[in-house]
Amino acid sequence: MTTNRLVRLAARPVGLVGREDFDIVDEPAAEPSDGEFRVCVEVISLDPAMRGWMNEGRSYVPPVELGAVMRAYGAGKVEASKHPDFPVGAAVAGLFGVQRYAISDGKNVARLDVDAAPLERWVGGLGMPGQTAYFGLLDLGRPKPGETVVVSAASGAVGQIVGQIAKLQGARAVGIAGGPDKCRFLTEELGFDVAVDYKRDDFADRLRDATPDRIDVYFENVGGPVGDACFKRMNLFGRVPLCGLIHHYNATEDLGGLSGAALRSVLVNRLEVRGFIVFDFAARASEATAKLAEWHRDGKLRMREDVRDDGIDAFPEVLNELFSGGNFGKLVLRLG
Amino acid sequence: MTTNRLVRLAARPVGLVGREDFDIVDEPAAEPSDGEFRVCVEVISLDPAMRGWMNEGRSYVPPVELGAVMRAYGAGKVEASKHPDFPVGAAVAGLFGVQRYAISDGKNVARLDVDAAPLERWVGGLGMPGQTAYFGLLDLGRPKPGETVVVSAASGAVGQIVGQIAKLQGARAVGIAGGPDKCRFLTEELGFDVAVDYKRDDFADRLRDATPDRIDVYFENVGGPVGDACFKRMNLFGRVPLCGLIHHYNATEDLGGLSGAALRSVLVNRLEVRGFIVFDFAARASEATAKLAEWHRDGKLRMREDVRDDGIDAFPEVLNELFSGGNFGKLVLRLG
Repeated sequence: MTTNRLVRLAARPVGLVGREDFDIVDEPAAEPSDGEFRVCVEVISLDPAMRGWMNEGRSYVPPVELGAVMRAYGAGKVEASKHPDFPVGAAVAGLFGVQRYAISDGKNVARLDVDAAPLERWVGGLGMPGQTAYFGLLDLGRPKPGETVVVSAASGAVGQIVGQIAKLQGARAVGIAGGPDKCRFLTEELGFDVAVDYKRDDFADRLRDATPDRIDVYFENVGGPVGDACFKRMNLFGRVPLCGLIHHYNATEDLGGLSGAALRSVLVNRLEVRGFIVFDFAARASEATAKLAEWHRDGKLRMREDVRDDGIDAFPEVLNELFSGGNFGKLVLRLG
Repeated sequence: MTTNRLVRLAARPVGLVGREDFDIVDEPAAEPSDGEFRVCVEVISLDPAMRGWMNEGRSYVPPVELGAVMRAYGAGKVEASKHPDFPVGAAVAGLFGVQRYAISDGKNVARLDVDAAPLERWVGGLGMPGQTAYFGLLDLGRPKPGETVVVSAASGAVGQIVGQIAKLQGARAVGIAGGPDKCRFLTEELGFDVAVDYKRDDFADRLRDATPDRIDVYFENVGGPVGDACFKRMNLFGRVPLCGLIHHYNATEDLGGLSGAALRSVLVNRLEVRGFIVFDFAARASEATAKLAEWHRDGKLRMREDVRDDGIDAFPEVLNELFSGGNFGKLVLRLG
């Protein structure tokens, strides 16, 4: 009999998550019924949005219930199957949760080509983060050649793709990241035009120097002072795809969203600010995946993952690294 | 010889304007050259945006220069003309400035039908404020039948038109205004479904009660705590035409624009926030004017002006009433 190890949400975290907010337990793995299969989940994607899923209250998806397996997007191999489309050995990705073995009926599960890229990349730049970058930038940001695109959390899962797609569109790409290593990575490895270190005291001055023609598209992942500075630096008729607010997700009080000056910029510059999540574009997921895979295959789109081999028990600690900037690239946890 | 009386900007105001920020002087009125005419300006429109025009710095129009005639939209009669399209006696509206007599070459000047409505209405609901409501609501807000439209500063020049057009589209109209008289006016005179008094301590509770299905379109005129409460009350895929930020225009420090919770609402509810000004729709002005005039003629669109007969010297004091809510309806100053 196969033993499953799984992470259940035990409490609503306050601020950063702690080990005490989860129950990490062993249970017998369930057997698939007809039309189902069982996945051995090898890697899970760690995303800032997961922190929001743990909170009560109205959001874009229902919160994870107390006692339920923590929600997570992951990838692995089918190892028992009563489903004709998902044979044993098939590589798959889906919302399998933070657990070693998951039962699925195949809905919203993608088959993966592991010859094209390893599993960790299929939950990163070729998976939902890649799709997020693709739709957010192209549908909502709509950069024109010569325009300036700025993206925050630029070395992260979504940001690194945003900047490279901006370049592919003929736009100027400016990345905001924390520390010299990440900034160097953006310009030297990914082809961003400029990188700006938000940890420096002179960040606002450097942002201004990096955007002599102001900002036409600001792809917002963080909020806080970084986002505020970018809103104030926008150009006439600029677009702000609002993808994430990492700065705020662990806040135990309201940190303030936009200054009066930033809100005034929305008015006087006639900005278009659009909140979105990748699920809004689910019907077109295959379009994005095909294009991302093509660019990747042709060497036009590079991707960096930060894969942690610490195993499932390390889930809380590794998740928190997203909020301190401890990861460098798409953060992935190997469960085995 | 005709004497002109005019208001020049003498200083950059700090906070609310004062008499000392202007020079109010008499000068000989200029004579029109070929292709020009002279207007006797009878009424001027007092708009919150005027306060912004007095500030230095980048905005959607250049600031009024120190020493220049204060910019204002007004209406009056041609009383000397060397322009074939604008004969003596014609009623006209344009950016004539805060002065009794203006020279114009006719560019961006509209001929008015004073049989259809008096001059003060042509600088109000049938003029730029009406166009602002028309384009902001219909192009950016796009209310569907049965949806809930909320507008702040609802008894003001723009707000009163927004709510009535919302009703004409089959939407539910909720107005936010200050005090019981204005609230009663909205529901009893203009046909709003509900009015909410922002001066009451229980404003947020009343807003919630007034919007049981949340807010699909929030037409933003004010910012501040009222705007923040509305952002937090938005529905999935709601739209926020951002037309004005009256709460902020006289601020001597940054009052804060949006709370973290309001910014989070933009993300999780996938809001579309769009800053705009009426000049963005200048090419379609005649479409709006024709429709507004038609609704007005048919009794479907009511308009209330607050015309002050205090004369040109009262310009600073009357302007300030916009920011204390001292006006009731479209604020107009009669110069004579």
